[in-house]
Amino acid sequence: MAKKSTKAFERKSAALAALIEALGNRKVVTEGREKYMASFDSSKLSFDYDALILARTEKDVGTVLKLANEYKVPVTTRGRGTSLTGSASPIKGGWVLDMMKMNRIVIKKEKSMAIVGPGAVVKDIQDAAEEEGLFYPPDPSSLKYCTIGGNVACNAGGLRGAKYGVTRDYVVALEGFLPNGEKVSWGGEYKKYATGYNIRDLWIGSEGTLGVVTKVVVKLIPKPAAKWTIVVAFESEDKALQGVQEIARLGLNPAILEYLDCNSIYCAEEIGGVKLFKEVSGKPLLLIEFDGTKARLKEDRLRTLEWAKESGIAFKEAKNEKTAEVLWNVRRACSGAMFALGNAKINEDIVVPLENQAKFARFIGRLQKKWELPMPTFGHAADGNFHVNIMFHREDEEEKRRAKGAVAELMEKVVALKGIISGEHGIGLAKTPFMTIARNPAEMEVMKAIKKALDPKGILNPGKIFDVFEVWDKTPEKVGLPWDKKLLPKQ
Amino acid sequence: MAKKSTKAFERKSAALAALIEALGNRKVVTEGREKYMASFDSSKLSFDYDALILARTEKDVGTVLKLANEYKVPVTTRGRGTSLTGSASPIKGGWVLDMMKMNRIVIKKEKSMAIVGPGAVVKDIQDAAEEEGLFYPPDPSSLKYCTIGGNVACNAGGLRGAKYGVTRDYVVALEGFLPNGEKVSWGGEYKKYATGYNIRDLWIGSEGTLGVVTKVVVKLIPKPAAKWTIVVAFESEDKALQGVQEIARLGLNPAILEYLDCNSIYCAEEIGGVKLFKEVSGKPLLLIEFDGTKARLKEDRLRTLEWAKESGIAFKEAKNEKTAEVLWNVRRACSGAMFALGNAKINEDIVVPLENQAKFARFIGRLQKKWELPMPTFGHAADGNFHVNIMFHREDEEEKRRAKGAVAELMEKVVALKGIISGEHGIGLAKTPFMTIARNPAEMEVMKAIKKALDPKGILNPGKIFDVFEVWDKTPEKVGLPWDKKLLPKQ
Repeated sequence: MAKKSTKAFERKSAALAALIEALGNRKVVTEGREKYMASFDSSKLSFDYDALILARTEKDVGTVLKLANEYKVPVTTRGRGTSLTGSASPIKGGWVLDMMKMNRIVIKKEKSMAIVGPGAVVKDIQDAAEEEGLFYPPDPSSLKYCTIGGNVACNAGGLRGAKYGVTRDYVVALEGFLPNGEKVSWGGEYKKYATGYNIRDLWIGSEGTLGVVTKVVVKLIPKPAAKWTIVVAFESEDKALQGVQEIARLGLNPAILEYLDCNSIYCAEEIGGVKLFKEVSGKPLLLIEFDGTKARLKEDRLRTLEWAKESGIAFKEAKNEKTAEVLWNVRRACSGAMFALGNAKINEDIVVPLENQAKFARFIGRLQKKWELPMPTFGHAADGNFHVNIMFHREDEEEKRRAKGAVAELMEKVVALKGIISGEHGIGLAKTPFMTIARNPAEMEVMKAIKKALDPKGILNPGKIFDVFEVWDKTPEKVGLPWDKKLLPKQ
Repeated sequence: MAKKSTKAFERKSAALAALIEALGNRKVVTEGREKYMASFDSSKLSFDYDALILARTEKDVGTVLKLANEYKVPVTTRGRGTSLTGSASPIKGGWVLDMMKMNRIVIKKEKSMAIVGPGAVVKDIQDAAEEEGLFYPPDPSSLKYCTIGGNVACNAGGLRGAKYGVTRDYVVALEGFLPNGEKVSWGGEYKKYATGYNIRDLWIGSEGTLGVVTKVVVKLIPKPAAKWTIVVAFESEDKALQGVQEIARLGLNPAILEYLDCNSIYCAEEIGGVKLFKEVSGKPLLLIEFDGTKARLKEDRLRTLEWAKESGIAFKEAKNEKTAEVLWNVRRACSGAMFALGNAKINEDIVVPLENQAKFARFIGRLQKKWELPMPTFGHAADGNFHVNIMFHREDEEEKRRAKGAVAELMEKVVALKGIISGEHGIGLAKTPFMTIARNPAEMEVMKAIKKALDPKGILNPGKIFDVFEVWDKTPEKVGLPWDKKLLPKQ
């Protein structure tokens, strides 16, 4: 045993020495605050590891992987580390490969494409596209911080998903490296191909376990000319979710259709002090935004107002960005205010099919009573992707136990309602205990077989997705992150 | 050797007996015209095989695969067999699994989804969607015949790809079976998931080599209110392809943007007798269709007319479906008329990035001269997906030799121009010799590793994509298919 661990130590040291020799001292960080801050993601689950690598070029990435493959060193790739699931936490140690410096953004207007490095921040891509009259729609809440590489890794979504889709819908091509350091590209600067297996889409959402992306080609679309926003209050959660179905039935196609349940509204109004309506309190809302040509918006507005008058109990509209901000405040306020209900939040991004949404809302009501924890729930109702925010106090062992029980029951229910346990965050470490309720044994075997076939040495982001990790046994770091408590639903 | 082949024969017989016992005589066809007609696809490359299976239920499919796995029988899944590449030809014999009877179509209006069997004909799905005011955009030329299962297998595209994308962009979920007969589902009736590897998109485009689809959930979108069509003639092919870039630069987003080169126009005008303009002859065209709200179309029309007057030498517009038909006739006529130039056509669906399209057109000019064969070229210019139609006489060995040389040179050039060898047809048998110029060794290894991991016995559609097949050494069947020579670009 002692001999074995000595050997392991020697291999680690040799690997690190080879790495420093290949990349130089400046790109390899083996101690200090910077290294510590890359030992966890937004889950704050920290693990010890050997070296932080600040990749600057494609060649760096190839070199790192060749060495990692040779010495069997685990490699956890990361962008800004905004993941909520621990997917960027280096649970098996080894090396952390930081891609933030590979953040090139080139907009190709005539092709409606952007060629970006994996470290490019999503908001920066959006801004660069807008300057050319173009639009990159995916808008995860962390968009001011998170990178396109991370968005590709978990197939990030956002508020505009119902109309515009998610990251996957905009990725035209990926370039990068296999775990053995060999260069591959899946697609090019063209939108169509039917030439062998589609590995591009297999990599998207694989959470850094199959390859490392060094270049992303994304599709851009024409920027919508204008927006129109409305908030509608409903008598009950049932009525609000019926409203989601009515909007679909009317053939309306809003860019954003956010649902806020009674608890979320309580947070916004009573804690956050943001109250949209004088005449009604504590009522669930739909926050709806249309975009498109002015003519189209005019038509959408008329039809939506007619529906709102009939189905809602109050509404407020905004014709420009400034008054829209007032409406968005309610969503923003509720996110922050939740922390008055508990200093810890489990944000589960589950998906429920349209026809089961009302059933699901009633279930959340029961779940809160049973486990005696507040669970303000809001989310992207048009695609059934709700964020159930289970609030508790981390230092209270009894509350922790109840939160754990609530999460497990939630996951079982979501699958029973023919939904799925993650819509946009991914599995990482946090959701590993629930993979087997979401996926049958044959499906799990297919995924594991692919992992084994493409990463036979198990180098890339080991310990994620497939190995069950007991997140509750591990204490998160007590450290502030720039986006803590202020992840904005709208920028 | 003799012993081995006796054993193989015995295993085949035992497998067939077990199959008939499990499925009954009516679903298993072992001789006759029906079986023969399923021995090839639109490539007309016919191979001998043991049994045609007419699957009626999901259970049938599971049973077939369990037996095939047990007895190691090759299984080639097929829909209508419109594939041009031989992807549905049972090159390794065994069983052909016909899915045409599994053609259920259920439209779920409030969810904007259709739940369809793999045997559902694409045009029938479109019609059913339209009845509910919805729209299924992918439109391969064979849409009146081809099935959604086949469309999923090759990720079929069509004319509306530039604005609306391809089959992949509409597939929400797939249900089906692994090669070992185990049931799996990739996604459900919801649009978002980030729960383990995305096998749905790996199956799409895998040409029936990884699994058998028994249910497809597709996304539908609101049906556009109106259309506006224009045909613009240009002084030269260069100018026409510059036009494609200008349209992109203007931020116009047509649903269809078809390019027809001089040769295609020659076919339409001189052979097909369809002449759109009195004042100009033999000039390349762009056929452009916008769709959307009437207000939007008005705006698009004004901007497009302004551009057409400046860049084109003649144009004709159509404000309704009937006059649009007249414009579409030119595309239709050219497809049929080509057969006056040769009784055999190789239709290569290559893709070239926008910036290299003009270069590519000049290359096609040189290629025709060098190999002394006509190659009318048209296609979906906005996404760079051109159909190069190499015409020759099949019985003329010398012409065949030249056609073969031209295809090889075409493929090399496409890759050199940073394009890809297939945009929507797939690889099948026909394009297998060119896979290794389109994909590097590392990429090929990844694909092969996946095939081996998911189908270790090599049962599903063996001999496709990866094994080089010399299509020129095999004589196609002399048999008529309903869509021969009349695959319409527009229905």
